[in-house]
Amino acid sequence: ILTALGEASQLADAVITTGGLGPTHDDVTATAFYRYFQDEPIFDKVYWQELESRFGRMGRNIPAINKDQALRPRSGETIPNAVGTARGLHYERESCHYFCLPGVPREMKAMMTQTVLPWIQSHSRQTFFVKTLRTTGIPESALAEKLAQDLHVAGDQVEVAFLPQMIGVDLRLTGPTQAHVEAVEHRIWPTIERYVYGTGEDRLETVLGRQLQSLGLTLAVAESCTGGLLSHRITNSPGSSAYFLGGMVTYSNQLKEELLGVRHETLEVHGAVSEPTAREMAEGIRARTGADLGIGITGIAGPGGGTPEKPVGLVYIGLAVTAGTIAKRFEFSFDRETNKLVSTQAALNMIRKWLHDRG
Amino acid sequence: ILTALGEASQLADAVITTGGLGPTHDDVTATAFYRYFQDEPIFDKVYWQELESRFGRMGRNIPAINKDQALRPRSGETIPNAVGTARGLHYERESCHYFCLPGVPREMKAMMTQTVLPWIQSHSRQTFFVKTLRTTGIPESALAEKLAQDLHVAGDQVEVAFLPQMIGVDLRLTGPTQAHVEAVEHRIWPTIERYVYGTGEDRLETVLGRQLQSLGLTLAVAESCTGGLLSHRITNSPGSSAYFLGGMVTYSNQLKEELLGVRHETLEVHGAVSEPTAREMAEGIRARTGADLGIGITGIAGPGGGTPEKPVGLVYIGLAVTAGTIAKRFEFSFDRETNKLVSTQAALNMIRKWLHDRG
Repeated sequence: ILTALGEASQLADAVITTGGLGPTHDDVTATAFYRYFQDEPIFDKVYWQELESRFGRMGRNIPAINKDQALRPRSGETIPNAVGTARGLHYERESCHYFCLPGVPREMKAMMTQTVLPWIQSHSRQTFFVKTLRTTGIPESALAEKLAQDLHVAGDQVEVAFLPQMIGVDLRLTGPTQAHVEAVEHRIWPTIERYVYGTGEDRLETVLGRQLQSLGLTLAVAESCTGGLLSHRITNSPGSSAYFLGGMVTYSNQLKEELLGVRHETLEVHGAVSEPTAREMAEGIRARTGADLGIGITGIAGPGGGTPEKPVGLVYIGLAVTAGTIAKRFEFSFDRETNKLVSTQAALNMIRKWLHDRG
Repeated sequence: ILTALGEASQLADAVITTGGLGPTHDDVTATAFYRYFQDEPIFDKVYWQELESRFGRMGRNIPAINKDQALRPRSGETIPNAVGTARGLHYERESCHYFCLPGVPREMKAMMTQTVLPWIQSHSRQTFFVKTLRTTGIPESALAEKLAQDLHVAGDQVEVAFLPQMIGVDLRLTGPTQAHVEAVEHRIWPTIERYVYGTGEDRLETVLGRQLQSLGLTLAVAESCTGGLLSHRITNSPGSSAYFLGGMVTYSNQLKEELLGVRHETLEVHGAVSEPTAREMAEGIRARTGADLGIGITGIAGPGGGTPEKPVGLVYIGLAVTAGTIAKRFEFSFDRETNKLVSTQAALNMIRKWLHDRG
């Protein structure tokens, strides 16, 4: 750690470390910082009392092993931790700033957002504007081909990065000013408009939720191969109870019949993984919950269960609304968990398109 | 990239890069490798035909932009990509080996597992044995206090790392041989036995699934605040349909009554977030699906919806079996998504304890 701090300080104006601030014997980063800055930490009684009372509120005694987390530097500063017990450290030496953060992702993220990023922003000599457009339903290479004519126009000064994820491709536009970035955005908009669902860190399920809520529409879902992931994603959005009524995970044929009312004959003739079943699942969950929109998903997530006629990755999705039911066939070629994920994205994208076409 | 390759080669015998192998203009890592090794790549017609037929099987034409992905080095080797289109690169110079991998996590992981790790293993001069014990239901600091006497015994030669995650704490034991590691494992076993659910990369839901299946027991779940996440986790395990019948996500009171049979009076008197509701949800899903085990989860995931009596993070979980119903109260203090996650872990842990006590 001492070597790395020395080397990093030669390369940058700010050095950030993560991890090693916990209470156990293998957490040595704070000690390394104190040694690097030849600091003699002191026991912070006030903070220790705060930790004691925090643990007390949870009905627990604070273990003595946490005592080191109440140390504080003499020549540096502590960084507050809104979501955990270990505070961060901030030192300055020879115009280089050093930030020592915990490794627990949520604690690290909170400190980055609340303390480190604002500090960097206020000390940065370079400014630029970044906008991310989130697309779904088109692969990276197809999107790049569509945009080939519109990018790299002389004088743009805007970098466009393609950031592919399983649930879609993000386009990150970086330029000297907002005006530069938005000029490029406007130029490419007609090409990408039908694939864009949001900007920045927008999630498709959250964007759709806002639209459903503003239209006064409710949603319910019936899942087989996605096993609850669609419900899970929808309910990750705070306030989703305003438009999401609930869902069913009907893994067995029997539950598809008993709970959703899928007809025995449909399952016999077409099979559980079929368009008619997806339709009846969507219509069944809509009828049983009284929702405006019903989604039904059935497919083969893998790795087992595939046949030559119905291979792993085959998924049917139904969307039932007042006017009738739409259904679509998909064939994915990923592992089990990715097939689940992209199936839920395809279902959400069907809702997005329906809302879009509805105007 | 050229500078980083030069610097890294001074520090290590093997250098691994990830990212920048995609088909778009900002993917420049392969070009940097070719320049660094003064190589002149050649177009690999055989591989291009393979890509064409792979795309063909998905009913798509391969975009011309992918052509660069069919280049191959003259003085280095390609690394096969079992799950994507971009192959990796492997060069050697002055006894340093360079591996160039894609950034897409699943492609990178597949190449690491299939090619790079076996290569490192066969070229490593150091050998050691690693075993990870996965615990849940006890915080890192409490576990460390319990183990304080048993660790750091003279002559052990075994490093014990505490790796805390939201769903539990992993203990990673690293020693010169399997015998060294297992000696420490046996010493600490009596202390940790009641918290350990598996080793290595075992998942709690998968371990439980194997147990349920071998006992011929079936499971169904009713979720409110976890919104489908428990079903999702259970169905991530291949073959889960052998013991998992299905689930319901009943977000509204109305669906709790209509679909699960929670009594109107219970909701009126005790509220949706209460022990009696959790019990009736567990019993309701068990009765409606015919499962041997029924789980009911109700709580307040946050950030809204809390009151002084029923704060955000309050969760009740019921487990209904033939012999009766157990219920437990939890109070978590995280963000919405983490509260959902730890609630599902608590539910799985209740099943684990029940199976454990059952013997």
